[in-house]
Amino acid sequence: MEYDGTDFCGYQTQGQGERTVQSVLEETLRRLSPRETIAINAAGRTDTGVHALGQVISFETANGLPLERWAIALNSLLPRDLAVAHAEEAPPGFHARFAARRRTYGYLIWTRRTRSAIWNRYSLHWRRVLDVDAMRAGARLLIGAHDFAAFARAGGNPGMTTVRDLGRLSVRRVSGGLLVTATANGFLRSMVRNLVGALLAVGVGDLSPAALTDILESRDRSLNPVPPAAPHGLCLMRVDY
Amino acid sequence: MEYDGTDFCGYQTQGQGERTVQSVLEETLRRLSPRETIAINAAGRTDTGVHALGQVISFETANGLPLERWAIALNSLLPRDLAVAHAEEAPPGFHARFAARRRTYGYLIWTRRTRSAIWNRYSLHWRRVLDVDAMRAGARLLIGAHDFAAFARAGGNPGMTTVRDLGRLSVRRVSGGLLVTATANGFLRSMVRNLVGALLAVGVGDLSPAALTDILESRDRSLNPVPPAAPHGLCLMRVDY
Repeated sequence: MEYDGTDFCGYQTQGQGERTVQSVLEETLRRLSPRETIAINAAGRTDTGVHALGQVISFETANGLPLERWAIALNSLLPRDLAVAHAEEAPPGFHARFAARRRTYGYLIWTRRTRSAIWNRYSLHWRRVLDVDAMRAGARLLIGAHDFAAFARAGGNPGMTTVRDLGRLSVRRVSGGLLVTATANGFLRSMVRNLVGALLAVGVGDLSPAALTDILESRDRSLNPVPPAAPHGLCLMRVDY
Repeated sequence: MEYDGTDFCGYQTQGQGERTVQSVLEETLRRLSPRETIAINAAGRTDTGVHALGQVISFETANGLPLERWAIALNSLLPRDLAVAHAEEAPPGFHARFAARRRTYGYLIWTRRTRSAIWNRYSLHWRRVLDVDAMRAGARLLIGAHDFAAFARAGGNPGMTTVRDLGRLSVRRVSGGLLVTATANGFLRSMVRNLVGALLAVGVGDLSPAALTDILESRDRSLNPVPPAAPHGLCLMRVDY
């Protein structure tokens, strides 16, 4: 699925009356299939304001609608900022979140001095000069299987392991700015935004690349001085199974 | 300048109370420089719904604001769907429209079967299969200096020459679809949208590539059976001086 996260309170419904991706999807499925209650699982529970070009959801249904009609039927009912790109049948018991082997997020940093009227929905506008080589050096120190508790929202994962295998954390120059790409078997709450925040702090010289290792090894969010980067630069790009 | 054309009634103000790029710019310049009346010239008078990544405007001002402050001051007052990318001083008498040597427009055609939640603002969703080779063959027949009256809005250019020099009309595969790029010394009203409409008619086999030559040579919009392509796929990419 794809969504423009600007007008969503994130993927997952937590309170009443919030416009979340999940609530809009559930309401749409109720309209399409009123005789059953469909529970949805999503590969990535994106934060408020985060976009998606490659979110994956799964659900079970007794509705006899032919497979090739699902995407079209859902897209005809969904609002324009939410769309199904593709639908396929999954093996019995498939769960979009638990079966995912790898998630890839992109974070776009707009580095021109002036803001963009089009890309401002999908990027963080960053005016200070960034040392890209230092950011890359910092990123390399974070790659691998580590306890990323210091880069997760405090209290976001109570009682669960905070070890994740970060296979890729790259910083690439693109038209208008920089694209940070992060791939891991899974991410903790706000983890990509905390990683990007830390790389930006390295880029402006507030932290040395090596300081990221110290923060990582502290395993303590309260010892990480850097706030997470804003959500609207972040996009869930793909999920691999 | 850049703008997301979705919520603008085009560049040029024609009636009262319309939200046009021109009216928003003029109002913003009045706030920034209340002691003078600033008249704006624009390189391309884009239609309702058309976007811009490279629009150029010019104006004369007696305001002593330093050059490097103009973009920042305007951007702080402009709405988020309109932005100044860059400001520079022009020679005396410079006119953004009359001095322009070449304009380049891009038209994005989204060809996946399903719509996109993010790119739908900036592309035409086209579900029918397109023969790209035929579109390219048709495009080649239109390149050059011709009377493009058959590809202009009827009555859109009364008493003016309708000859334009189309230097480039290309069809390129991009992620998610096709990008048509058109470069000319100038374009008639709705000309790019009429060219793209004709290429789409060739792409689905409603017209042969050679039929485009017949339409061109008719010099008569009423003998062109193809409607213009929708505005929201079109973007003014750059202006050369």
